[in-house]
Amino acid sequence: MKKIAIIDIGSNSIRLVIVQINKDNSFRIVDEIKRSVRLGKDITIDGELNPSRIDNAISTLAFFKRLCFIQDISEILAVATEAVRKATNQIEFLNRVKLELSIDIRVLTGIEEAYYDYFGAINSMDFSDALIMDIGGSSSELILVKNRKLKASISLPFGAINLTEKFSLQKVMNEESEAEIKTFFTSIYNDIPWLKEVNDIPIIGIGGTIRNIGKLHKRKTNYPIDNLHNYIIPTNEVIAIYDQVKVKDSYQRKKLKGLSKERADIFVGAAASLVSLIEYLDIKELHVSGSGLRDGVLYEYIFNSKIPLDDVLDFSLNNHLLNYKIDIKHPSHVWMLTKTLYNELDAIIDIKINPYKILKTAAMLHDIGIVISYFDHHKHSSYMIANSKINGLTHKEQLMASYVAALHRKNEFKIDLKLYQNLITKQDLEIIDKLSVLLHISESLDSCLNGNIQFISCDIRLDTVTITVDAKADPLLEISAAMQCCSSFEKTYNKKLIIK
Amino acid sequence: MKKIAIIDIGSNSIRLVIVQINKDNSFRIVDEIKRSVRLGKDITIDGELNPSRIDNAISTLAFFKRLCFIQDISEILAVATEAVRKATNQIEFLNRVKLELSIDIRVLTGIEEAYYDYFGAINSMDFSDALIMDIGGSSSELILVKNRKLKASISLPFGAINLTEKFSLQKVMNEESEAEIKTFFTSIYNDIPWLKEVNDIPIIGIGGTIRNIGKLHKRKTNYPIDNLHNYIIPTNEVIAIYDQVKVKDSYQRKKLKGLSKERADIFVGAAASLVSLIEYLDIKELHVSGSGLRDGVLYEYIFNSKIPLDDVLDFSLNNHLLNYKIDIKHPSHVWMLTKTLYNELDAIIDIKINPYKILKTAAMLHDIGIVISYFDHHKHSSYMIANSKINGLTHKEQLMASYVAALHRKNEFKIDLKLYQNLITKQDLEIIDKLSVLLHISESLDSCLNGNIQFISCDIRLDTVTITVDAKADPLLEISAAMQCCSSFEKTYNKKLIIK
Repeated sequence: MKKIAIIDIGSNSIRLVIVQINKDNSFRIVDEIKRSVRLGKDITIDGELNPSRIDNAISTLAFFKRLCFIQDISEILAVATEAVRKATNQIEFLNRVKLELSIDIRVLTGIEEAYYDYFGAINSMDFSDALIMDIGGSSSELILVKNRKLKASISLPFGAINLTEKFSLQKVMNEESEAEIKTFFTSIYNDIPWLKEVNDIPIIGIGGTIRNIGKLHKRKTNYPIDNLHNYIIPTNEVIAIYDQVKVKDSYQRKKLKGLSKERADIFVGAAASLVSLIEYLDIKELHVSGSGLRDGVLYEYIFNSKIPLDDVLDFSLNNHLLNYKIDIKHPSHVWMLTKTLYNELDAIIDIKINPYKILKTAAMLHDIGIVISYFDHHKHSSYMIANSKINGLTHKEQLMASYVAALHRKNEFKIDLKLYQNLITKQDLEIIDKLSVLLHISESLDSCLNGNIQFISCDIRLDTVTITVDAKADPLLEISAAMQCCSSFEKTYNKKLIIK
Repeated sequence: MKKIAIIDIGSNSIRLVIVQINKDNSFRIVDEIKRSVRLGKDITIDGELNPSRIDNAISTLAFFKRLCFIQDISEILAVATEAVRKATNQIEFLNRVKLELSIDIRVLTGIEEAYYDYFGAINSMDFSDALIMDIGGSSSELILVKNRKLKASISLPFGAINLTEKFSLQKVMNEESEAEIKTFFTSIYNDIPWLKEVNDIPIIGIGGTIRNIGKLHKRKTNYPIDNLHNYIIPTNEVIAIYDQVKVKDSYQRKKLKGLSKERADIFVGAAASLVSLIEYLDIKELHVSGSGLRDGVLYEYIFNSKIPLDDVLDFSLNNHLLNYKIDIKHPSHVWMLTKTLYNELDAIIDIKINPYKILKTAAMLHDIGIVISYFDHHKHSSYMIANSKINGLTHKEQLMASYVAALHRKNEFKIDLKLYQNLITKQDLEIIDKLSVLLHISESLDSCLNGNIQFISCDIRLDTVTITVDAKADPLLEISAAMQCCSSFEKTYNKKLIIK
């Protein structure tokens, strides 16, 4: 086990992420700290970083270095972006950091920054085609992704801070300045030839402004899940939030609930760049990504490769199991049995969604609750599935997987429908019931944890379903365990269950 | 890391517990299986274990052995109690198990069994004086504990199964048989000289019957916490449950909600022995212990010693931190600071309970939630504190600690008062608020995780409280972090907070 640190010296904030990496290469974030240094602000007329902001950055980095020392960090990966990238006194800054703190900062080019944004998002979200937008303090990156590959990217020299300065956006926006901004962005977007290829794909948004838009929207809709990663907002709602904030003065913005106080003064410029792009390309959905540059740096370090994952969910589930030291054999076998059951019973299951990811997540993680307590572990598994960062799922899939897992032992778990009324419909509850019976049967069929039952097949008749098992050794115990699901099977599917 | 198995061959059930023991000697239960074999039933007239029950025991043990093999168990600790202890064909049974399964069973004497009951309970509950009663299938143990030491013990040759057989308790109990049972127990208890010493102490109850009484009582009172360990029942309620069950016939008992189906037929005899003891000694409270014989065997193995813990809570908190690989330095330092703050501010905190255990639990475990996700980890810590087996706390203390920990970062956490209305009063909420401010300040004062602030002292004035910190290096960062608690401090304590 070792720990590494990623330090991200942005134009708005400087961040430290500490990651624990186990011997099996599984990893977990164990600390995250942010300081609003705004290195990209108050640049001198010669293009130098402002001296007092440099001092502030140095003392922040000294603090981070101290934390790294205390936490036995074996390696620090420090990267800097636009503010340092274009500073005319870049070398002096880097040398001072090197001399005083022995930290080597890698200054990323705009294209490298875009690549890490892409690499962070692609390995933590399950999408094929999208336009990624990372809005930073002094630059913004656009990346076109097709078939999960980076097709084109660009780093644009504007972000929340310098847009605010350029267009004096701290005050109420008037029609004139709005038109001016619109013209500005249209001309920029016009100059990016590959943007014309963008058609009917979502924007994946990275950065504090976009997370803040997500928070504002959640507050507005009373959304019941705290997690921002993978949160989807219709773009007309993004525009509505922008319209609401831009007409307020700086005092009112600071008072606006849900708008980060640290970001209130620079929110409108960044939001304008996003809204302009949405309107320019007529984009319908914004997907918030909690993963970006720092995650990209981390994934490259962990994989020791620039090749993105094929199966984000599979990797994420494995990472959780390894972190919790749960032997993968039993969950994998349960997943195999559940998948077979689902395929064989497809005709009578009759649900309108593809439940593979839900079933796989529930099957693979159904036992993780034992790390909290073996007693009632199905409930703890459910809590953990709902609250972990599981990459590759929508929020709804994650929530449904958590309920399916909760029901893997007994039928006593009650879903708090009131809390999730906007997310889980009655139809979803039926699906959860149907899937949880399958998981319960499969889990029982591997109750000896040894993969004894190698294959199952089903025969569906008018009144009965017969599951025939093929086992290495006498499967009496497994069958008698699975038979305890008969009544819930009958209740859910309206057919008698026979297992032999 | 290694895994060991404890196999407990009781007169009613045979159980397997698998325990993962880490290199640092921390441990966690990872699997638990029970089979109702009832080896103590249908004993032949020659006092031999019944052949078909032996076969059943052997196949159960074979299954357990297989599970141990699959799970890479390095050691099996198998113990047997009354049924095997007094069987005239004990040797044949032990030999067969040895020959067919290579398992060495250690047959415990009654006094050894009582000792392990004591050792399991004393190391997982915080009590000084108590009478422990373990009601098994064919024997019951009574242990007198004074000053946490075992003063006297006895194993009595009756339990749930043989009492049921002896007094034909499967049917509705009539007055005659009730009187007969009472006389039986009174004469037995009369013969235990040291029972006369028992005065005004609780019974700590071990075993399935007592857990089932706990479940029945929880159901009756709509108790909101699932955990049974440390559940306290007034003994008049125990008697009421007994009275309710004894007048039902076996069919009605099986239908009674909350009464275990596997235990319904043998419940009344065991409950009668408990109720008789309660009445005989005029005992006021029954404390349910989830830990008994198997835990005693485990603790002796882990400690490699027969000396009980001095501080159950401290050991339990440490075991959790080690299991989650959370560095103990920061939580320990936060606890030291919190304790100092509490002592210094005692006069204005003004609460009617001793909150040490609550504060210590919250301080030591406030960060464990990061194992689920760093994001919102205070909420996950809270869930985990509420749902883990933390030894040495009452349920209320555990719940309050979970809320104090939830509030260690922000004040946004809402307590579901409706759920816990019988357990958490408005007064308790005030206490939680008061304590959480202390934890929040202390946590901020070690925000650099390095124990920089070595000592604090407080000066209480009419309108202000001044905390003076004594630091190794410039404590600017810590103080500015702690200053963010000023408004909640003022709101809670009605005094301005100054930190310098």
